[in-house]
Amino acid sequence: MADLAREIGFSKAYIYRFFESKQAIGEAICSSCLAKIVAEARASIDVSGSSAEHFRRLFRTITTLSVELFFQDRKLYDIAAHSAAEGWGSAMSYRQTLREMLEEIVRRGRESGEFERKTPLDETCRAIFYAMSPFVDPLQLERNLDLLPDGQAELTSLILRSLAP
Amino acid sequence: MADLAREIGFSKAYIYRFFESKQAIGEAICSSCLAKIVAEARASIDVSGSSAEHFRRLFRTITTLSVELFFQDRKLYDIAAHSAAEGWGSAMSYRQTLREMLEEIVRRGRESGEFERKTPLDETCRAIFYAMSPFVDPLQLERNLDLLPDGQAELTSLILRSLAP
Repeated sequence: MADLAREIGFSKAYIYRFFESKQAIGEAICSSCLAKIVAEARASIDVSGSSAEHFRRLFRTITTLSVELFFQDRKLYDIAAHSAAEGWGSAMSYRQTLREMLEEIVRRGRESGEFERKTPLDETCRAIFYAMSPFVDPLQLERNLDLLPDGQAELTSLILRSLAP
Repeated sequence: MADLAREIGFSKAYIYRFFESKQAIGEAICSSCLAKIVAEARASIDVSGSSAEHFRRLFRTITTLSVELFFQDRKLYDIAAHSAAEGWGSAMSYRQTLREMLEEIVRRGRESGEFERKTPLDETCRAIFYAMSPFVDPLQLERNLDLLPDGQAELTSLILRSLAP
């Protein structure tokens, strides 16, 4: 709190006029970071291309931006990791939004015949989300930084092979 | 240390005659647990069956035993999690052994024509290992207990779809 107050030039008491608690401030900071990732992820799939390319872009964007936002600033990472571990609203709705984007890509890929259709859509999307977690979840990403970028590219290819018709 | 000494009925001083440090004791306890998982994992694939069945059994055995060993005893989990996070020798060689078993299964499945052969073997195995991590790594497993058993079964099916020729 002292760091934050110094950084933005307000007193701690003044900051607390806008937020109920330290957690509320953490939530606001976290939401703002996650919103940036979501916006970039959205932009990365709102361009023409195959569903495989959309998936590649989505996954790479999430990882690249998470690394940029969370690991250039240790404090931001601590907030994000705490948020993920405690299941804060901001972390939950972030995951939900990413899942919806993933489902959109898989559904379109199925409609165009690019992806298989035998597995139930929700099962496929859940399983892909589990598989992606080493490079999406900030807690895991921190321990997997040395696997980038190759590890993520290899995992992307595995997921795309699993989607083949 | 006090708990351990009480549990096994030796003095702390006596225990330290056999171990150089607290970490050395943690390592020994951790190694012994991981050896149990490795032995069960080995037994689960040393039976007849398809390579897909072997993979299912390997993955399920690792997860089931990890849950049993690490989450029935909070102290054991703390040691294992610390070991994984700090990259102790016991955790490293455990991961290496599991990787070798995985590679054995994938290689056999390729030889019998059950699995695809286009992707380099080492890439396939690395990517599978990343994908398995939510249910293999004790740090992640702790946060994914409520996804068991369905989440793991769904992830297994995704990985097997990725291995289809």
